[in-house]
Amino acid sequence: MYRTHTCGELRLTHKGEQVTLAGWIQRIRNLGGMTFIDLRDRYGITQLTVNEDSPADVKAIAHTLGREFVIQVAGTVMERSSKNAKMPTGDIEIAISTCRILNAADTPPFTIEDESDGGEDLRARFRYLDLRRNPLQSALKLRHRMAQEVRKYLDSQHFLEIETPFLIKSTPEGARDFVVPSRMNQGEFYALPQSPQTFKQLLMVSGYDRYFQIVRCFRDEDLRADRQPEFTQIDCEMAFVEREDILQTFEELAKYLFKNVLDVEFTDAFPRMSYADAMQYYGSDKPDIRFDMRIAEVTDVVKGKNFAVFDDAEYTGGICVQNCAGYTRKQLDELTEWVKRPQVGAKGLVYIRWTDEGLKSSVDKFYTPDDLTRIAARHGAKQGDLILLLCGEKKKTQEALGTLRIEMGTRLGLRKSGTFAPLWVYDFPLLEWDNETQRFYAMHHPFTSPKPEDLEKFNSNDKNLLAQVNANAYDFVLNGTEIGGGSIRIHDSKVQQRMFEVLGFSPEEANYKFGFIINAFKYGAPPHGGIAFGFDRWCALFGGQETIRDFIAFPKNNAGRDVMLDAPSKIDEAQLKELGLKV
Amino acid sequence: MYRTHTCGELRLTHKGEQVTLAGWIQRIRNLGGMTFIDLRDRYGITQLTVNEDSPADVKAIAHTLGREFVIQVAGTVMERSSKNAKMPTGDIEIAISTCRILNAADTPPFTIEDESDGGEDLRARFRYLDLRRNPLQSALKLRHRMAQEVRKYLDSQHFLEIETPFLIKSTPEGARDFVVPSRMNQGEFYALPQSPQTFKQLLMVSGYDRYFQIVRCFRDEDLRADRQPEFTQIDCEMAFVEREDILQTFEELAKYLFKNVLDVEFTDAFPRMSYADAMQYYGSDKPDIRFDMRIAEVTDVVKGKNFAVFDDAEYTGGICVQNCAGYTRKQLDELTEWVKRPQVGAKGLVYIRWTDEGLKSSVDKFYTPDDLTRIAARHGAKQGDLILLLCGEKKKTQEALGTLRIEMGTRLGLRKSGTFAPLWVYDFPLLEWDNETQRFYAMHHPFTSPKPEDLEKFNSNDKNLLAQVNANAYDFVLNGTEIGGGSIRIHDSKVQQRMFEVLGFSPEEANYKFGFIINAFKYGAPPHGGIAFGFDRWCALFGGQETIRDFIAFPKNNAGRDVMLDAPSKIDEAQLKELGLKV
Repeated sequence: MYRTHTCGELRLTHKGEQVTLAGWIQRIRNLGGMTFIDLRDRYGITQLTVNEDSPADVKAIAHTLGREFVIQVAGTVMERSSKNAKMPTGDIEIAISTCRILNAADTPPFTIEDESDGGEDLRARFRYLDLRRNPLQSALKLRHRMAQEVRKYLDSQHFLEIETPFLIKSTPEGARDFVVPSRMNQGEFYALPQSPQTFKQLLMVSGYDRYFQIVRCFRDEDLRADRQPEFTQIDCEMAFVEREDILQTFEELAKYLFKNVLDVEFTDAFPRMSYADAMQYYGSDKPDIRFDMRIAEVTDVVKGKNFAVFDDAEYTGGICVQNCAGYTRKQLDELTEWVKRPQVGAKGLVYIRWTDEGLKSSVDKFYTPDDLTRIAARHGAKQGDLILLLCGEKKKTQEALGTLRIEMGTRLGLRKSGTFAPLWVYDFPLLEWDNETQRFYAMHHPFTSPKPEDLEKFNSNDKNLLAQVNANAYDFVLNGTEIGGGSIRIHDSKVQQRMFEVLGFSPEEANYKFGFIINAFKYGAPPHGGIAFGFDRWCALFGGQETIRDFIAFPKNNAGRDVMLDAPSKIDEAQLKELGLKV
Repeated sequence: MYRTHTCGELRLTHKGEQVTLAGWIQRIRNLGGMTFIDLRDRYGITQLTVNEDSPADVKAIAHTLGREFVIQVAGTVMERSSKNAKMPTGDIEIAISTCRILNAADTPPFTIEDESDGGEDLRARFRYLDLRRNPLQSALKLRHRMAQEVRKYLDSQHFLEIETPFLIKSTPEGARDFVVPSRMNQGEFYALPQSPQTFKQLLMVSGYDRYFQIVRCFRDEDLRADRQPEFTQIDCEMAFVEREDILQTFEELAKYLFKNVLDVEFTDAFPRMSYADAMQYYGSDKPDIRFDMRIAEVTDVVKGKNFAVFDDAEYTGGICVQNCAGYTRKQLDELTEWVKRPQVGAKGLVYIRWTDEGLKSSVDKFYTPDDLTRIAARHGAKQGDLILLLCGEKKKTQEALGTLRIEMGTRLGLRKSGTFAPLWVYDFPLLEWDNETQRFYAMHHPFTSPKPEDLEKFNSNDKNLLAQVNANAYDFVLNGTEIGGGSIRIHDSKVQQRMFEVLGFSPEEANYKFGFIINAFKYGAPPHGGIAFGFDRWCALFGGQETIRDFIAFPKNNAGRDVMLDAPSKIDEAQLKELGLKV
C-alpha cells in the first residue's frame, strides 16, 4: 500500500503520528520559506508543509512539483496554527519528511476545480480529467449509493436480481434497435435490448415471482437534448399482483431511497392523479406539483361575447400567477412572444390583471367586469394576481398552458431544487392513433393490458371506442419529470393476440416477432405487472440537476459519439469481410 | 394481491386460518372421494385438498385442472393426518373452499421436475418452462445471493460501483469484437466491450480509487464447450496498491462469499504458487489442489539406459496414483489409449506398479530395480501405488501429465463437489511468442506491467530476454478452474508505449487505438492494479456444477444462438439501408 491514510482522514486526534499519504496536487503556494501543498484524493484534501527545516531533498523536489502531479509523502501530523473550519482536515497539516513523485503531470487543459474554465467539448475529450472534479465525483458517488440502496431494498422484499441477455432478437416496434451482425450466422443480426420487457415477463411465466435488474438499455433514436443511446433502467416485475400492489411496493422503494440516500422523510402516501386530471389541471402527463397554479377552463364563460378568437376556439383556459398583477406591458409583451415560440405554439396571450383598480384585461372591450370576475373566480384569483389565458384546440392548448405554467413556476422560483414532489399518474389511454401510418400504436408498449372494464371496447372494431380504452398503466413522476412507468401486463395469450391485431400485425408477423411470448402464455402465465425507472434521471434529480450527463461516467454527446474514445469509428476490411458485410 | 401467503410459508401455527394462495399445479392425485393438489410457487409447495364436503363448484373445477395450470384458491389451514417431514409445509394442507383458474395451461412438452424428461434442445427452446425446475431456480437464486453479497462486501470496503459504456471503440487485440453499426455515422461502428479494462484504468486516473462493477462482457469467439458470447465479470480496480494489497483485498472478498453464501469458513490464508511451480508440479496454470498427486520429473533418472523413447525426450515425468497398483492390464491399456487422444496428446504411457512382489514396470528390460526405486522415491510412492510416466517436449508433457492427473483425480473421486480449494497463482510470463504471426502477444493484456526487476529485459530487443520477462499478474483459481485474473497495471506512459512497441504496434497504430489511455497517463496516473472474476463460473462452482449454462437465465447454445428467441435473425432491408450496409 502506498499510504497509511487517505487525504480525508486525518484529524487533530492523529497529532504527532507518522503517516504516509498519496494523491494529486491540487494547489501549491510558495510563501517565501514556506511551501503549502494541497494533496487531493477521492476522500478529501490534506495540507502538506515544507519549510526551512525540511530535509534538503524534500525542498528540492518541492520546487519541481506542479498541479496534478501524483506524489507520495511521509511526515508528521501537526496542529495547524491557523485552522480552516471549512475543511474536515482543516485542523491539521503534514510536515513532510520524504516526498516521491509517483507520476509527473502535464499541465491539464482546464482547471480541476468545482467551476472549471474548460468548455464542454474540451472537458468531454478529456473526460478522465473532468471526472476528477468534485461535482462529478459527488454525482457518481450518489449514483453508487442509489444503486446499492435500490438493491438492498428490493433484496429485502424478496426480489431476485436476474440478468437478461444483451444479444437478442430485433423486433422493431417503437424506437429503432441497435443491431449486431453475427459472424457465425452471416447475414443475420442480433439486436441490443431497448428494455428487458419480454424477458422479465418470461421470468414471471417461469415462476420467479419478483424480479429486478439495474440494466443497460439501448435506443437508436435521433438524440434530443439530454438523451443517451445507452441508458440504465431499474427494471422490475412482480407476479400475482394488481396495480395497487405495484404502487405500494415501489412507493416504499422511493421512500426508502429518499430516506437512505437524501435523508428526506415522506410519511404520507404519495399523491395520485389520473391522466385525464393531469391534462386538465396541469396540461401535462407529468405535472410538477411542487407548486399549485392549476389550469382552469373558461370556455363556457368566454364564448358568445363577440370575441372571435375565443368564439372560434374549441377550448379556452388559463392559469393564475399569484402576486404578478404588477407585470408591466413590456413583461406581458415578452410573455406573449414566449408563448408564440414554436416549442409552445400558442397564437397569442390574453391577460387579466387584478390591481388596486380592479380587474383589467387585454380584452376589456368584449368582456364585462362580471365576466372577468367569473373568470377570476374560476382561477381562485385574488387581488394582486395575474391571469394568463390561451385558447385553441383543446389538447394542444392544455399542453401550451402546461408549458407556460412550468415557465412561470421557474421564473417565480417555485420549482426549488431540494424540494421533492412525487406523484403517481394512472389510467393512460392504451392506444394512440397515428394519422400518417393510419394505425394504432401502443402508448406504453404492446404488452400493457387494457383495464378490465374496457375489454368490450378493446374487442370492438370501432376506432372511436378503441381510442377510449384505458390502459392499466401508471407513471411515477418526480418534480415534473417522469422517472418511472409501468403497467399490469396482458397474461392471456388471446388478449395478447388481439393486441397485436389492433396494432395492425398480421398473425404471421406477430408470430415471427413475438411467437415465443405468445406461446409462453399458453403454458400457465400468472397475472403480473411491473415498472421500470430511468436510473440516470432519478440520480440526476436526487442530485438536484436537470441533466443526466454528469451522472454517467462516460456519456455520449448529442451526435451519439464518445469524443474521448473517438467512437464510433471505421473497422478493418478484414473484419467486415468476416461478417459478410459491405458498407 | 392474489394471495395472503406464499406456497412455502404455512406451518402448523397457521392451523385454522383462512388463507388465499396462488401458484402452479405441480401434481394432482385423485383418490376416489379425495383430490390432492400440490400447488407450487418459487417459495415451495403446499398441498390442497378437495373432498366430498367441498363446495360443489370446487369439486367441479377440480376435475378440469391439469399440470401447470395457474390457480388461485382460498381455504382453511388444516393439520395433515399423515405428515410429510421432507416438506417444510408437510404438516399442513388447505381444505379449499374456492378455486379460480387464473390461466389454463397446455401440457408442457417435458416434465417440470428436478430430473426432466426433456432433451437439451427442447428445454432450450422452452427455456421459460425449463426455468421452472428446481435446479435452475436454485442456481439463479444462488447467483442473486452472490451478486448481492459481492456488492455488500465491496461497498463496505469503499469500492464505488461505476457503470462503463457498452458502445465503445473497436480495438481488436486478442479476441474478436462484436461490432454495432452506427446509423448516425454511416460506415462507422461501435464495438461491444470485451471488458471494461481501459475504462477502469481511466477511473483510476480520475481518482476514483476503488472501482467495481458486475458487468456484461462480449467476445466473438468460436465457441468452445461452455463458453458464452456474452458473459458477466466482477470487474475491480484499485489505486495506490501493490500486488499484496490486491491479493489480500480479494482473498477477503472470497472468504466473505464462502462464509455468507455457502457458510464455509476459511481461517487460514489461501495457498499461493508461482506459475513456474504450477507448471512443474501440476502441469497446469490452474491446479486443482483438492488432491495432491503432484508431478515429479525423472528425466535425469531415466536417460542413458538405452530406452530410446526416454533418451530422445526432452522431459520425462510422472504422477503417483495411490493404491492403484492393482490396475489390470486392460485398465492400463485403456489409460494408454486415453492419453493418446488428441486432447491429451501423449505418444504412450509407461507405468510402474508397486505390488506385493515389488516394483514392476512396462519397461523392465531397460531399468533395474534400483532405477525403479529411484523413480518411486521421486514420487513419494509406497507399496500399492501406481506410477504413470509420460515423456516428450517439456511443456507439452507437463500439460499432458496435468490432464492425466485431473482425470485420475476424477476417476478416484478426489475432486469432491462441496470441497473447495482456492489458490493464487502469480508471476506469469508477460509475453507469448506466436510463431505464425512472428510477434509477441500479451499473455494477459497489453496493460499488464512487467515486474519491476525485469524492466531491463523488457527494454532489450533480445527475443529470448523478452520471453523471460515476468508479469506482475495473478490468477485466482478454485478447484482447478481459473475464476479470476488480474495484474498491477502499467501507469507510466513510456512503459505503455514500449509495451505497444514490443507487441509490434507502430506508434500511429498504438495512438489510433489506445491514444486516449496513453494520453491519460500523461496527466497524473497513480500506480494501480485490479482483478476481474468470471461471475458465471464462480456461481457455477459455488453451486457445485461444472457448466455455467444453468446459472444464466437465457444462455446461447454452442452456435451462439438463442433458440428460444430464434436470434440472431434477418433484419429488414429498410433497416440495413438506414445503416448504409449490404449483406
